[in-house]
Amino acid sequence: MTAWAAGRGHSIAKGTSRDIRVANRFEVMRVVIAQSPVSRRRIATETGLSIATVGTVVGELLAAGLLLEVGFEDSAGRPRALMAVDHAGGVLLGVDVAETYVRVDLFDAALTFLDGVEEALSPDENRPGQVVGHIVSGVRTVLDRAGVPERRVLGAGITVPGQVDHRGGVSVFAPNWDWHDIPLGRLLAERLGVPAHLDNPLRAAIVAELWFGAGRRREDVVVLNLGTGVGAGLAFRGTLYRGATNSAGEWGHTTLVLDGRPCHCGGRGCVEAYVGAPGIVQHLRELDPDSPMLHVNDQTATIDALTRGIEAGDPIAQKVVAETARYLGAAVANLINLLNPEAIVLSSWVATRLGEPLLAEVQAVVARHALGRPFLATEIVRSTLPGDSVSLGAATLALERFLSDIAGR
Amino acid sequence: MTAWAAGRGHSIAKGTSRDIRVANRFEVMRVVIAQSPVSRRRIATETGLSIATVGTVVGELLAAGLLLEVGFEDSAGRPRALMAVDHAGGVLLGVDVAETYVRVDLFDAALTFLDGVEEALSPDENRPGQVVGHIVSGVRTVLDRAGVPERRVLGAGITVPGQVDHRGGVSVFAPNWDWHDIPLGRLLAERLGVPAHLDNPLRAAIVAELWFGAGRRREDVVVLNLGTGVGAGLAFRGTLYRGATNSAGEWGHTTLVLDGRPCHCGGRGCVEAYVGAPGIVQHLRELDPDSPMLHVNDQTATIDALTRGIEAGDPIAQKVVAETARYLGAAVANLINLLNPEAIVLSSWVATRLGEPLLAEVQAVVARHALGRPFLATEIVRSTLPGDSVSLGAATLALERFLSDIAGR
Repeated sequence: MTAWAAGRGHSIAKGTSRDIRVANRFEVMRVVIAQSPVSRRRIATETGLSIATVGTVVGELLAAGLLLEVGFEDSAGRPRALMAVDHAGGVLLGVDVAETYVRVDLFDAALTFLDGVEEALSPDENRPGQVVGHIVSGVRTVLDRAGVPERRVLGAGITVPGQVDHRGGVSVFAPNWDWHDIPLGRLLAERLGVPAHLDNPLRAAIVAELWFGAGRRREDVVVLNLGTGVGAGLAFRGTLYRGATNSAGEWGHTTLVLDGRPCHCGGRGCVEAYVGAPGIVQHLRELDPDSPMLHVNDQTATIDALTRGIEAGDPIAQKVVAETARYLGAAVANLINLLNPEAIVLSSWVATRLGEPLLAEVQAVVARHALGRPFLATEIVRSTLPGDSVSLGAATLALERFLSDIAGR
Repeated sequence: MTAWAAGRGHSIAKGTSRDIRVANRFEVMRVVIAQSPVSRRRIATETGLSIATVGTVVGELLAAGLLLEVGFEDSAGRPRALMAVDHAGGVLLGVDVAETYVRVDLFDAALTFLDGVEEALSPDENRPGQVVGHIVSGVRTVLDRAGVPERRVLGAGITVPGQVDHRGGVSVFAPNWDWHDIPLGRLLAERLGVPAHLDNPLRAAIVAELWFGAGRRREDVVVLNLGTGVGAGLAFRGTLYRGATNSAGEWGHTTLVLDGRPCHCGGRGCVEAYVGAPGIVQHLRELDPDSPMLHVNDQTATIDALTRGIEAGDPIAQKVVAETARYLGAAVANLINLLNPEAIVLSSWVATRLGEPLLAEVQAVVARHALGRPFLATEIVRSTLPGDSVSLGAATLALERFLSDIAGR
C-alpha cells in the first residue's frame, strides 16, 4: 500500500502503536506457521519488518509458549536460531454451529487439525441451552480423546448463524431459531473453562482464507459461503471487514430480481433465494417436478444427487447448474463491479459438491455481466482449504484474540 | 477501532512509519482547517496524537507554507501559539470533467472556495485534446481572475468519468467518449505548470465527504453520486477505498432487475438504468408519454420540470419520484446489507434537485428491504456540501498528494 492509496488514514492514526504491535504478531505467526522452522532474519525478509521488531515479537511469542527454538542453521560460520510453532504447547478449538449440526474441531497452535466431532441438531433442538449443551459435549469429547486439559486451550472460536455482537459475545438475532439477544458467550463461560470468542461464520470463513487460503497474498478478497444460506466474508487491505455493527456481508440478502422469488428473510428476489441450497432444489423442481434426484425435505441428499447427475452427464442436472450459475454469476459480477476485489473464493458445502462445473458456468456468466477492468483484476476460484473452513477460521479468530491479549512491552 | 477488530492488519504492518506520518499530516490539517486558529495542545486533544507528534507535524506544515502562527492564547500565564491555514499561501484547483461540461474551481489551502468557471462541452467535443483545452483554459481563467501565478498552485485534482489509473494519470476507459488509455496526466503536464492528480469522480466525492461532510466523524461511509450516471464512493475505516485497480464503486452497474431494462454499459437491469437521470426520464415517459414535463433530448430540463412538478403537488411528478425510489431504495438496501455502513450520503445534481421528497420515499423503501440490525446502524442523508462536491474532492485529493509528498524527517 502506498501512502497515497492510504488516503486520510483516520483509523491508522488512532491507537497506532498497539494496533501495529498486534498486526506484527499476526504477520510473524503466519510466517512461522507457513515456513517453520525459520530464522528471525527470514521472518524479517518475508514480513518486511525490521530485524529488531521481529526480535521483539519472537520474544513475546516464545514467552507466551507459542514458539520454541528447534535448532540452528549455519550462516557463514555464524549459527542462527530456528523458530517453530510449539506443537506440544497450547491448542485451539473451532466450533461451527449451523442449522443442522454442531461441529467442534481441535487444532494445535499452528492451526494443524488434530481431531473433530460433529453432533447433529434436530429441528426441535433450537433452544440456546440445547445448543450450548452440544458445544460443551463436543468440546469435552475432542479434549478427552486428545488427553488435553482445559488449561492448555488457548481459546475457542465459536460461530453461530445470524447477527452476532462479537465484542459482547451475544447472538443478537438468529432468524432460523428466532433467537434475540442470547448471551451465548456468558452461557458458555459458565460451562467451559476456556476463553471463548463468538462470531458470525462469514467472519470465520474470510479469516481462514486470509491466513491459509486465497487471502494469503492478496489485499481485497471476498469469500462466498454457499450452503443452505449464502453470504460473503469481506477483507479490504488485507484486513477483516466487519462493518459498523459486525453485520457486513449479507450478500445473500441483496436483491437480484426485484419482486422475484420470496426469500425466508421476508424479502423478495434475494440472491439466497436462487443460489442457496433450497433455491437450487427449487430450480430442479421447476425443471422436472418428478425428478428422481429430488429428495423431499432433504436438501443435502438432493444436492448430492445433483452432483452425481452432473458426473453422469444428466442433462437435467446440467441445466440446474446452468440455471444456478445464471443467478450466481450475476450476483458475483455485482461484487466485482462494486468492490473490485483481487479474488472471489467459492466456499462451503454447495461449492464443494457442485465443484468445477458450477465454477466454469459462473465464470462464463460473470464475463458477460462484469465491467472489463475490474473483471480482469479478479480471480474467481474455489477454496483450497481442507475440511470445515468455518471451524478453522473460528479457531484462527481465537488465536488472533490470544495474540492480541499477550501483554505488550 | 480495537486491536481485535483490526484483524490481521497485513497492510498496516507494511510501510508503516511513512503511512502513519502522512495520515498524521491529514489529521492535523483537518483539525486546523476546521478549528483555526488552534493551539498545538488542542490539535493533540482532537486527533489523539501526542504533543510531540503534533509538534513535528505542525513544523512540517509551517515549513511547507500551509500554516502560519497567527497569535497566542494565554494559558495560566503561559502564552500558547495559535495556528491557522495560510490563506495567502498556496492555492488548489479542482476540476470536474463530466459528459457535458468542464468545471474548474479555485480553493485556498484550507479548501475555501475562491472562484469557479464552467465551460460547456458540446457532444462533438470528445477528443482528448479538446477536453484538455477546456481544462487549460478554465484553469487560466480562474488563475488570471484571482491574480495567482501558476507557481503558487500546490496541486490540481482532475476527475474524468470512467476507469482511471490514478498512479499513471491515465484515462483507461471512458465509455461515453470511447476513450482507451489516454495519458491525460502527461497531456496536461505539457500544457500546465502545476502538479496534477487524475482520478475518478467517485473517489473525489467520498474524499470530500471524509474531509468536510458526513464522513467527518464516521468510519464506514458510502456516497452515492446521482447524476446522468450513478456510482458509489466508498470509505472503510475512515479511509478511501479504491479496490484492486481503482475501479471500485460501480454500484450503478450492479444488477437489480435480472434481464431488465437495457443499460448503456451493454448489460441489462443495472441500477443506473432505473435511477440515473435518463432512467428517471424514462419512468416519466412510461407514466405519461405526453407529459409537458418531458423535454426531448434535455434530461436536465426534464429533471428541473419534475422538481417544479413535485413542489406544485403534480401527481405524475410524485409518481415518478415514488417509482425512482422503488429502485433506488432497493439498491441502497443492497449496500446496507452488504457493507453495513454508518452512513449513506445522496449527492450530485439529481439528489440536489429531487431533494427531500426523494430521500423520504427512499428511506421508506429501504426500511422494507434492509435487514434490521444494519438498517438501524445506517443513517441515510443528503450531502450537506455546498457547490460541486466532485471538484472540492478533486482539490482535496490534490492537497492529500501535496501532504504526502512533503519531505519527511
